[in-house]
Amino acid sequence: MPNDRYDRLIAALRQQADLAGALRLLEWDQETFMPAGALASRARQIGTLSALLHEQQTAPAFLELVDGLAADTAALSPSALVDVCETKWRLDRKRRLDTALVRERSELHAQARGVWIDARRDDDFGALAPFLERIVQTERRVARLIDADRDPYDVLLEAYEPGATTATVAPLFQRLRDTLVPLVAQLGDGRVSAARGTLCGSFPIDTQRAFNRAVAAQVGFDFSRGRLDEAAHPFTTTIGNDVWLTTRYDPADLRYALYSTLHETGHGLYEQGLDPAARGTPMGTSCSLGIHESQSRLWENQVGRSAAFWRWLLPLARRAFPQLAATSVDAAVRAVNGARPSLIRTEADEITYNLHIILRFELETALIDGSLTVSALPAVWNEKMREYLGITPETDREGVLQDVHWASGAIGYFPTYALGNVYAAHLLIAAEAALGAIDVPIAAGEFAVLLDWLRTHIHRVGQTYRAPALMQAVTGHAPTAEPLLAHLQRKIELLKDR
Amino acid sequence: MPNDRYDRLIAALRQQADLAGALRLLEWDQETFMPAGALASRARQIGTLSALLHEQQTAPAFLELVDGLAADTAALSPSALVDVCETKWRLDRKRRLDTALVRERSELHAQARGVWIDARRDDDFGALAPFLERIVQTERRVARLIDADRDPYDVLLEAYEPGATTATVAPLFQRLRDTLVPLVAQLGDGRVSAARGTLCGSFPIDTQRAFNRAVAAQVGFDFSRGRLDEAAHPFTTTIGNDVWLTTRYDPADLRYALYSTLHETGHGLYEQGLDPAARGTPMGTSCSLGIHESQSRLWENQVGRSAAFWRWLLPLARRAFPQLAATSVDAAVRAVNGARPSLIRTEADEITYNLHIILRFELETALIDGSLTVSALPAVWNEKMREYLGITPETDREGVLQDVHWASGAIGYFPTYALGNVYAAHLLIAAEAALGAIDVPIAAGEFAVLLDWLRTHIHRVGQTYRAPALMQAVTGHAPTAEPLLAHLQRKIELLKDR
Repeated sequence: MPNDRYDRLIAALRQQADLAGALRLLEWDQETFMPAGALASRARQIGTLSALLHEQQTAPAFLELVDGLAADTAALSPSALVDVCETKWRLDRKRRLDTALVRERSELHAQARGVWIDARRDDDFGALAPFLERIVQTERRVARLIDADRDPYDVLLEAYEPGATTATVAPLFQRLRDTLVPLVAQLGDGRVSAARGTLCGSFPIDTQRAFNRAVAAQVGFDFSRGRLDEAAHPFTTTIGNDVWLTTRYDPADLRYALYSTLHETGHGLYEQGLDPAARGTPMGTSCSLGIHESQSRLWENQVGRSAAFWRWLLPLARRAFPQLAATSVDAAVRAVNGARPSLIRTEADEITYNLHIILRFELETALIDGSLTVSALPAVWNEKMREYLGITPETDREGVLQDVHWASGAIGYFPTYALGNVYAAHLLIAAEAALGAIDVPIAAGEFAVLLDWLRTHIHRVGQTYRAPALMQAVTGHAPTAEPLLAHLQRKIELLKDR
Repeated sequence: MPNDRYDRLIAALRQQADLAGALRLLEWDQETFMPAGALASRARQIGTLSALLHEQQTAPAFLELVDGLAADTAALSPSALVDVCETKWRLDRKRRLDTALVRERSELHAQARGVWIDARRDDDFGALAPFLERIVQTERRVARLIDADRDPYDVLLEAYEPGATTATVAPLFQRLRDTLVPLVAQLGDGRVSAARGTLCGSFPIDTQRAFNRAVAAQVGFDFSRGRLDEAAHPFTTTIGNDVWLTTRYDPADLRYALYSTLHETGHGLYEQGLDPAARGTPMGTSCSLGIHESQSRLWENQVGRSAAFWRWLLPLARRAFPQLAATSVDAAVRAVNGARPSLIRTEADEITYNLHIILRFELETALIDGSLTVSALPAVWNEKMREYLGITPETDREGVLQDVHWASGAIGYFPTYALGNVYAAHLLIAAEAALGAIDVPIAAGEFAVLLDWLRTHIHRVGQTYRAPALMQAVTGHAPTAEPLLAHLQRKIELLKDR
C-alpha cells in the first residue's frame, strides 16, 4: 500500500506545516507588532511550539513512515518521489544529531546572539570570540556527524543550498572576485554624488505606503493573499497560503523603501507562486535560499533598477510626489544605480555587494577547514576589505561584527546571497531567450509576461530539482559568473557615460 | 511527592497556555489582518492547533497527574489547591464527553454558524431551525453526560459562569425585569433626540485613533504590554503576557469608538492585572465571563458615562476635535446616556440592554427544559419584545436571528452579560465604601485609585473564588439587582431632568 502510506506522509507534513505557519506568525509578530513587554512570554511560546514541531518531525511513527516509503519507491509518481526523497534527506540530517547536541547547539546560538548584540554595540570582538570558537567547533562536529566522508563545509552549505558544493561555488566566486575587484577600483565618488539627491527630499510616509503597495500589486503581488507591513529589518514570511511582506520607510529617501519592497515582493511572488495543492510538502516548497534570493534580486535589481522599469514607474511616482515633476528617467536610473565601496554589506550597492559575500565565504570556509583561527578573524577581515574594496573598517563594529549570521550559528548561509545574484542574471537571459526583450512590456507596466515565465519554470516546480539542477534545466547549462558580470559591467558603463 | 507533582502540573498547564496563546494569535489575525484569501488555510491551522491542544489536555499522563493531585490535597497550599481543583473540574467536564460527541458537536456548531449567516441575511428562520433543534438536543445530552443529577441548564451555565445557578440568577433577573419594564415604558423619544448630534459630526479617524489610545492609556492600559487595533466586531485577546484590544471607528460619531474602546479596555485591564507569576494556571486566569464583563461594563458605563469622567475627558476631546469647543459637560453626558427601546442587543443602551438579555435567558432556559419548541421561538421572541420593550421586530433578522450565540452552540452564555452589569454596580459601591467617592479622582483623570482597588480585590485573586463567592468576599453579600437598578434609575432621572 505505498499510496496509502504516501497519503499519510502528506497528511503528516501538512500538519507539521500548520504548526510551522503558527510559529511564523508568532515570529512575524515578534518583529513587527508585539509590544516590547511581551518579549519573554513570546519567546516561551515560540520555544514551546518549536519543541512540539521537533517532536512531530522526529516521532518514531513518522520516521518509520518515511523510511518505509524511501525503501520502496517503485510505485511512486515522480512528484511523490520528490516528496519522499527530500523529506527523507532532511530527516536523515536531523536524526544524526542527538537531542543533547541539538539542545546544546540552539542554546549556544541563542546565547551568542545575545553576546553579539552587546559586542557590536561595544565594538568588542574579544567578548564574542570564545562563542565563535565554540560555534565553529560545534558546526564542525555537526558536519562530521551528518556525513563524516564529505568536506565539512559542504555539509553545512547544503543545509541552506542543497546541491551546492565548494567545488562549484569557489571557482565561480573566484571568477566574480577577480573581475569585480579591478572594476570596483575604478569607481570614484564623483560620479556617484552627481546622482545623489535626485530621489531624496521629503516623501510623507503615508503616501509612500500607498505608493509601495501600488508597486507591489502592479508587479504581481496578490494582496488578497498577502500583506505589506513594516519592520526594522524587512523580511517576508508565509503564514498559511498567505504571504506577508515587510518594508521600512525613510521619509527623506524614496529609494529606501522602494527597493526593500521590490526585494521582498520578489520573495513574496515566489511564495505565492508555489503550487497551492502541494502546500506544506517538498513539491510545494521553495527550492533553496539561493533560488529564493534569485527571485528577490531579479525584481529588485534586474527589473527594478532598469531604465524600462523607471519609464513605467516615474509617471506613477510623479502623481504621488509632485516634487518629481522635473526628474527625468535618466536621472532616476542613475540615482538608483549609484555604486561605491562601503563597509556595511546590507547597505552595499549591486556591484560591490558580491565582494562582501565572497569575503565572508572565504573566511568561513577557512574557519571550518582550520586554516583561519577566530582570533585572527578581525585582521584578515580588514585585510580582505582593503584588498577587494580598497577601504578598511576603523572598528570591528563596521567590520567583522556587523552581521548576526555567524553568531547565530549560520555558517554556509552567506554564499546563497551571491548565488541568488548569479542565478537572477542567468534567469533573465533565459527568460528573454524565451520571451524576447522584456524591456518593452516592463516599460508598459506589464510584468505578467516575466512573472508567468518564472511561475512555470521556477515557482511551480517546487523541489523537483535542487538548485544547480534547476538552473541547468531552465537555462540549459551550469551557472557561471558571466551573466552577472556582464550585467554589472553594463551598470558601470552607465555610471561612466554621463 | 505532591509538590513535585504540582510543579509538573504547572509546567503542563503553562505549555498548554503557550499553545492556546498561539491559537489566539491565529484567531486575532483572522478577525483583523488576515487577507481574505487565506481563510481556508488559516481555518486548517486553527483546527490543527486546537486538536494538538485537546490532545495535550486529555493525554493519559496529564489526566493521571491531575487525578493523583486531586486525590491527595493535604500538602497543597491554598493557591495550589485552587489550581488543582479548577483544573480537575474542567478536565472532568471534558472527559465525560467522548471524542465522537466532541467532534459531532463542534462540526454541528461550525455548520450552524455558516447556516446562520445566510439565514440572517435572507431573514429565513426556517433554514436555521433544524440546526437549532439539533443544538438544543445536543446541549441537553452534553449536560446529562456531565452531570445527570443536576438541572441541565445549570450544567451548561457553569461552563461560562462557574458557581452560578438558575436558582439564584432567575429571581435576580425577574427583579430586574419587573422594575425595568415600567421604567422603560416611560422613556419617550423626545428627550433622547434632544441629546442627539452633540458628539456627532466629522471626526477624522486618524485623530480618533490617537484620542482613543490616549484614553485607554490614561485609564491605565499598559501599552508596553498591549495593543489597540481595529476589528469589525471589537474584542480583546491575550497572546502571551500581552493583551490586544480592538475597537471600531465611526467618522461621524465620536461615541461609537470611545465606548467600544472603554469596554475593551475594561477587559484588557483585567487581563493585564492577572498575576503574571501564575500566568496560564487557574490562579492567573480570570474568574468567569460575568466577572470579566463586570470589568468592561464598570469602565464603559459606571465610569465612562459619568459626569465626572466627562469633566476630565472634555478638555482632552476639545484639543483633539476643536468643533467641541462649545459643547458642555452636561450636553456630552446627555449625549452618551440616551436611552430608548431598540431591536438590536448590541446597539442597546445601558438601561434597555438588560431586558434583551433577560429575554434570551428566559427563552434558552425554556428551550432546554422543553417548555418551548424551536419552531415557536420567533413568535415568543416577538411577544416578549413587545411585553418588555414595547416594540416588535418586523423581521426575524432584527429579532431571533440577530445573535450568533445559539447557532454557535452557546446556550448559557447570555446571562453573563447582565450578570456583568449587576456585578459592576456592586463593585462600584464596594469600591466607594473603601475609597470614598471616586468622582473627585475621576474628574481629575486619576483612575489608578479605582484600578488598584480592582487589581487587589478582583484581578490578582484569579480563580481563588467562583463568581458568586468572589462577589460575597468583596462586597460582603450575595449579588442582588438593587445596585444596578439604583444606578439605572439615576440615569433615567438624569434624562428626565432637563
